Amino acid sequence: MKLNIALLAGDGIGPEVIDQAVKVSNAVAFKFGHEITWNTALTGAAAIDAAGEPYPDETHQICVNADAVLFGAIGHPRFDNDPSAKVRPEQGLLKMRQKLGLFANVRPTFTFPSLIDRSPLKRERIEGTNLVFLRELTGGIYFGKRGRLNNGETAFDTCTYHRSEVQRIAKKGFELAMKRSKRLCCVDKANVLESSRLWRETVQTMEKDYPEVEVSYEFVDAVAMRLVQWPNEYDVLITENLFGDILTDEASVISGSMGLMPSASVGEKAKLYEPIHGSYPQAAGKDIANPLATVLSAAMMFEDFDLTDEAQAIRNVVNKSLTEGIVTEDLAQNGKAHKTSEVGDWLALHI
Amino acid sequence: MKLNIALLAGDGIGPEVIDQAVKVSNAVAFKFGHEITWNTALTGAAAIDAAGEPYPDETHQICVNADAVLFGAIGHPRFDNDPSAKVRPEQGLLKMRQKLGLFANVRPTFTFPSLIDRSPLKRERIEGTNLVFLRELTGGIYFGKRGRLNNGETAFDTCTYHRSEVQRIAKKGFELAMKRSKRLCCVDKANVLESSRLWRETVQTMEKDYPEVEVSYEFVDAVAMRLVQWPNEYDVLITENLFGDILTDEASVISGSMGLMPSASVGEKAKLYEPIHGSYPQAAGKDIANPLATVLSAAMMFEDFDLTDEAQAIRNVVNKSLTEGIVTEDLAQNGKAHKTSEVGDWLALHI
Ligand SMILES: CC(C)[C@H](C(=O)O)[C@@H](O)C(=O)O
Ligand SMILES: CC(C)[C@H](C(=O)O)[C@@H](O)C(=O)O
Repeated sequence: MKLNIALLAGDGIGPEVIDQAVKVSNAVAFKFGHEITWNTALTGAAAIDAAGEPYPDETHQICVNADAVLFGAIGHPRFDNDPSAKVRPEQGLLKMRQKLGLFANVRPTFTFPSLIDRSPLKRERIEGTNLVFLRELTGGIYFGKRGRLNNGETAFDTCTYHRSEVQRIAKKGFELAMKRSKRLCCVDKANVLESSRLWRETVQTMEKDYPEVEVSYEFVDAVAMRLVQWPNEYDVLITENLFGDILTDEASVISGSMGLMPSASVGEKAKLYEPIHGSYPQAAGKDIANPLATVLSAAMMFEDFDLTDEAQAIRNVVNKSLTEGIVTEDLAQNGKAHKTSEVGDWLALHI
Repeated sequence: MKLNIALLAGDGIGPEVIDQAVKVSNAVAFKFGHEITWNTALTGAAAIDAAGEPYPDETHQICVNADAVLFGAIGHPRFDNDPSAKVRPEQGLLKMRQKLGLFANVRPTFTFPSLIDRSPLKRERIEGTNLVFLRELTGGIYFGKRGRLNNGETAFDTCTYHRSEVQRIAKKGFELAMKRSKRLCCVDKANVLESSRLWRETVQTMEKDYPEVEVSYEFVDAVAMRLVQWPNEYDVLITENLFGDILTDEASVISGSMGLMPSASVGEKAKLYEPIHGSYPQAAGKDIANPLATVLSAAMMFEDFDLTDEAQAIRNVVNKSLTEGIVTEDLAQNGKAHKTSEVGDWLALHI
């Protein structure tokens, strides 16, 4: 297979972790006889510095023409405490999601048996946890009308959803549930919000098309509790953009392996893969960041091209690195920490 | 002191737990020489059945004329999976908050040393946790314009905040921080939402009036993670209505003592005290529900009347019941469970 991948390293530790994912992907491609062309492009603070904006048109073109996008992280502390900044790296992220139509953010949370004791939660609460959030990513309050009234004294944001937006993400949810345990949880706040009532009513209407899927409806506040109480009771969860932002981050803590969690964001055509962690500016340039989440994001990419063996080869070598202790300082026990680049080299060699 | 308290038992287990709080409050009043008049009124599903709506005017008048309101819980399963229900118990709650102007919801989360091992989180993560959320309760997306467009195919909700709404809750936050560890965390999503930028900018402007308070600003998704990782790093947190709904419920799990967590909702004049748990319909009428959260809510009420010794007497007797095992089945070890009413009797007797 010939794959044309857009490579958006972004800010902070982005370039370092992306490098390792490229090494590992190339090793897999070599082993299985594929050919990957990597097209690098700028995003985030790096793009603001170079082109004055965080998701330049040139970058967009490269993404549109690619079979998939591999993404590092964006964000830079110099923008964070300045509510008046006109251009922000995050805007690039939102623009990219919207322009590429990446409406479904897929965020698995699972435990690594060898790392389970790193979790803040007790072992018996999380053993066997293997859930997936589908977060709606191009609608809701992130993209609704917002602004100021009364000389800036009043601020407003609007959460808007059209039934078709709910249908397309719910469809992905039902389909994913069919491939897994056939349980789907729709997370909303239908006791207060009209947009949530539209979500609930739309999903309820779709139930008849998937008679085998058992659907539950839970309020977002209840899920925020139950996720920490009994995460292994959940399987597939679908939710709107803002609730998904909060709950997927909460869920990422459960396994104790936040630095290892991959994600995918997909649309009708576009596909983007990225680690869930941020740009971690304090570690940038030090060759110490954990590259495994990005490497596992590349595995999700191969999986979505139906290259299942290739994806499995990556997951296997990652598991091997964990059990053999070829890990960066965040996971190192008894002091033996490897550099980011060393972990990448080892993984590529052992594919 | 003469106290005139409105008593809103509500639905499900509400009446049973409220009964115990009344017993304990009366015992405290007797011991310290106060006189409490209780005025009962209907809310929730009970009020819908009796008066066709969940927060009738008559109830409102009783609350307005009271020095404080003691509240049980509302909610009934027959309304939950019906997005089209015209009258819902929750509407009564929202109407009550708005009409009484209860703009600040105060939700402490703390650990009971004797119960710490019940937490889903590991002991070393939660030991010493003692934080308070101030959730804005009468603004934001709960009360903004909402509706349908395009023949019902599009739904929208609006989150609106005026600077003065942020100021009054932030003021409470700064004042509370001054009485505690002088640390205040403002939780928002200022990298996306205009209303959050108004929050952040308003709090930043107020910092100079409280030079001793150290203020931090964190994004809601980050707090959703950090709350489960290191809850004991937080002290006072302020946030808007919807974020507060999600995060306070998440926080309630930390201590492992959800059934014991009290809350207060206060306005310029009105004050309301209620357990954080819901109406727990499965247990209604069985005399098994844990009354301690409601009893501790009564303690918060005495505290707010500057009756500190009275509040402390309640907390002491609750601690005593926990160490002596005079508890309901949810907390019972080795099988010795007491009835709701027995726990209440014991507490009243030992005040
Ligand atoms: C950076 C921010 C705009 C973004 C979001 O809220 O979507 C991030 O938190 C995420 O989840 O990818
Ligand atoms: C019942 C519901 C409307 C309410 C809310 O969301 O405020 C509840 O969850 C709470 O937190 O008191």
